[in-house]
Amino acid sequence: MVKKQDVFHSLFNPRSVAVIGASENPLKMGHQCLLSLSGSAFPGPIYPVHPQAQAKEILGMRSYAGLNDVPGEVDLVILAIPASEVIPTLQSCRAKGVRGAVIITAGFREIEDPQGERLQKEMALVASRGGIKIIGPNTFGLVNVHARLNASFTPLFSRLKPGSISLVGQSGGVSHIIAYQAINEGVGLSKVVGLGNRCHVDFADLLPFLEKDPETRCVILFIEGQDDPKDLISAVKKVARKKPVIAMKAGRYEESWKAAQSHTGSMAGRYGLYEASLRQAGALVVQDPGELLDVAKILTILRPPSGRNVAVMSFQAGPGILLTDAIVEHGLRIARFSPPTQEQLNRILPPLTIRTNPVDIAFAQNESLFEGSLKLILNDKNVDALVIFLLHHPFMDLRRVIRPVLRQRQLSKKPVILGVNALHGSIDEEVAELETAGIPVYSLPDRAIRALKGLMVYGEMFKKKGC
Amino acid sequence: MVKKQDVFHSLFNPRSVAVIGASENPLKMGHQCLLSLSGSAFPGPIYPVHPQAQAKEILGMRSYAGLNDVPGEVDLVILAIPASEVIPTLQSCRAKGVRGAVIITAGFREIEDPQGERLQKEMALVASRGGIKIIGPNTFGLVNVHARLNASFTPLFSRLKPGSISLVGQSGGVSHIIAYQAINEGVGLSKVVGLGNRCHVDFADLLPFLEKDPETRCVILFIEGQDDPKDLISAVKKVARKKPVIAMKAGRYEESWKAAQSHTGSMAGRYGLYEASLRQAGALVVQDPGELLDVAKILTILRPPSGRNVAVMSFQAGPGILLTDAIVEHGLRIARFSPPTQEQLNRILPPLTIRTNPVDIAFAQNESLFEGSLKLILNDKNVDALVIFLLHHPFMDLRRVIRPVLRQRQLSKKPVILGVNALHGSIDEEVAELETAGIPVYSLPDRAIRALKGLMVYGEMFKKKGC
Repeated sequence: MVKKQDVFHSLFNPRSVAVIGASENPLKMGHQCLLSLSGSAFPGPIYPVHPQAQAKEILGMRSYAGLNDVPGEVDLVILAIPASEVIPTLQSCRAKGVRGAVIITAGFREIEDPQGERLQKEMALVASRGGIKIIGPNTFGLVNVHARLNASFTPLFSRLKPGSISLVGQSGGVSHIIAYQAINEGVGLSKVVGLGNRCHVDFADLLPFLEKDPETRCVILFIEGQDDPKDLISAVKKVARKKPVIAMKAGRYEESWKAAQSHTGSMAGRYGLYEASLRQAGALVVQDPGELLDVAKILTILRPPSGRNVAVMSFQAGPGILLTDAIVEHGLRIARFSPPTQEQLNRILPPLTIRTNPVDIAFAQNESLFEGSLKLILNDKNVDALVIFLLHHPFMDLRRVIRPVLRQRQLSKKPVILGVNALHGSIDEEVAELETAGIPVYSLPDRAIRALKGLMVYGEMFKKKGC
Repeated sequence: MVKKQDVFHSLFNPRSVAVIGASENPLKMGHQCLLSLSGSAFPGPIYPVHPQAQAKEILGMRSYAGLNDVPGEVDLVILAIPASEVIPTLQSCRAKGVRGAVIITAGFREIEDPQGERLQKEMALVASRGGIKIIGPNTFGLVNVHARLNASFTPLFSRLKPGSISLVGQSGGVSHIIAYQAINEGVGLSKVVGLGNRCHVDFADLLPFLEKDPETRCVILFIEGQDDPKDLISAVKKVARKKPVIAMKAGRYEESWKAAQSHTGSMAGRYGLYEASLRQAGALVVQDPGELLDVAKILTILRPPSGRNVAVMSFQAGPGILLTDAIVEHGLRIARFSPPTQEQLNRILPPLTIRTNPVDIAFAQNESLFEGSLKLILNDKNVDALVIFLLHHPFMDLRRVIRPVLRQRQLSKKPVILGVNALHGSIDEEVAELETAGIPVYSLPDRAIRALKGLMVYGEMFKKKGC
């Protein structure tokens, strides 16, 4: 068990990486992999390897004709070579003492030709004998943001910010959708893994590593289908006791299930069964890739509240009404302020404001009035969580909202979520500051409420189990 | 009737604008309004007016103590002054021959004090007598992107791109959410109007103008509530015969309905009634502000298909499965290729690809193979619309996808939608090119399918009515 952990540790934290199939041609995967590694500023040596590349330079890096020619030790290899060369190359990896291999090459189990499946089985055997862990084949690769390791064919992933959410995806395409969203919205990630054909490493193998990984506080799984989901389910069950696991399973209907089946080459089980077993195992199941990241973010920042009663404060009435619509629609409740809170709000807020929940504080853009109401609302026993919404406008000093929210958040254990609608990139610093201080930020009313619902459902799952 | 149209024409296309309540203080609305006008590069004269401002300059613009001191004619005024000064100012506007007034000032019907309601009625009367159209009071203003007129207190709106979608919002906050989304995603808008307290100009007044406006091809309405929705409904009915109208009504539940009621000060009717009447009148009703713009965009670019059978082509299997999930979930159908199409696809595409619908063309990234399948699929009588999905990756030459799509789109009347997941701002030019050529682009599978569903539902509404 300890050894297995060690192997995954080397895979995600290699001291050196070789790219086999390195190329000067930007249209080749081997070229993109080199760009990824150098773009993420990987601190260890990077060795481009290509039979015709001896003593040449590729992208400014000294390159080698074979793995044996590489002067130093190699912990991780990335393979972007024809399928027929993979097994001999793995044998030379074994000789070199390589610990992990990311195999980008396609043309194995996923093809119709039975030769693909045979090759894949042999590949797994060779790797197992050599103590090498294979990610793939037919994968985009893996990323460990904290180790500045972008071992993928997507150089854009070097723009990922470090965070505590790890993503394991059975679909390269969907993993890209989620990781691009993380980049676009500045959500930090820890590890990103594309499982590819899972010849050697599947969800069930990686989950125990992520369970113990101190850089991972929440795990996202995107599942297409498994031959036998039992291992997946029992692995989820173990991790979910320690860390939130959020899962999405594609192929919810007859039509899409068939497509998932032919893609993964496995007997992808019916959606309903997966959903029930994943829930039973303690995973939060969502149905929209955008929601995965929104829910993961809130789970890394906040603890679940004790109930579903939500207070809303907005600086414009319209968004407050949309939040209320979303709260009811998603099965949460609009908190009813206790009489003393309502009485005091009526006293301190000017008559121009709507002082019942949802509170419209449009006319109370005075820092102390806002903070006073914030305090009253957070202290109300009828309130389990608070959502505040505002629009970013140069006219409004955002700090007059942020300061009181940060102060009151320190004094209360209740979740506070901030919705701020803004132009892309215009409030990145403020968002980072708020999220570090325990206040997740969302750009749209519905997204804030869906995330909050995820947090609440997560809390209820574990309350029921008595954890 | 002709005169009324003229008045709205002046409101949206003034030759000159005065900002009354202009200020050097950036925290004042009057200052932001000047920034908006200059930022949108309004081509006519802009006159800052403030009692203490005589012969001074504000933001480099010569300013005046009163409207009477302004040398030229003034078509439009923006009022950012105390509520008590609004009526005398409107009287001087009348003397000056002003045609339209955007009244930002708050403190009228929306306040608890009955004096607010009285003032508002009087204001409307003064304006009517002088032939002035008032937008507001208590509004953020209006924008006519084509006229480079940002007559709002939000300078960021000057970044809106010209387009053919006009938005009329009863909530300033939600109008901002939609307009910010338009800026973030590069969706062009034509007019944006915040109705505010609607003392003089309501949905029903603006709709006939937008019906005839050649720069408007699609109208978005965000509704909180009306005292008497009859006028709104019959105005929608008229416009909807000519142009698509997309409507969203806030306050879908008891809790939010009450909030909408206290905000608008009107007897906001029950949601169900609004929804039914709006649908009956020919509007497309949606429930998510993000969806408004997605559906509006598709309606300005494409004509509805004749049925609900959708073909899917994706370059990665995972997103193809998500598209299929979304198609079924939203009540559309996965097209079943006719036997000749299926036969030919099996012949031309390599065995590595999934050749049934959803088609995964991962291994056929060859321009002519892709174009060949595209042609076969679009010509299949069982296919009503096609959605193609790809990830933007430096490794993939986007033009090898765009070129065939553009060519085949020319030869087919069927809607083609492109989903491209990319980092913000990285493919803006390509998106503009595609959308100009009649191919709407969406970033996420679910958003593409929701938009397509809107287009299909819109087509079915009018087919039923025999239009």
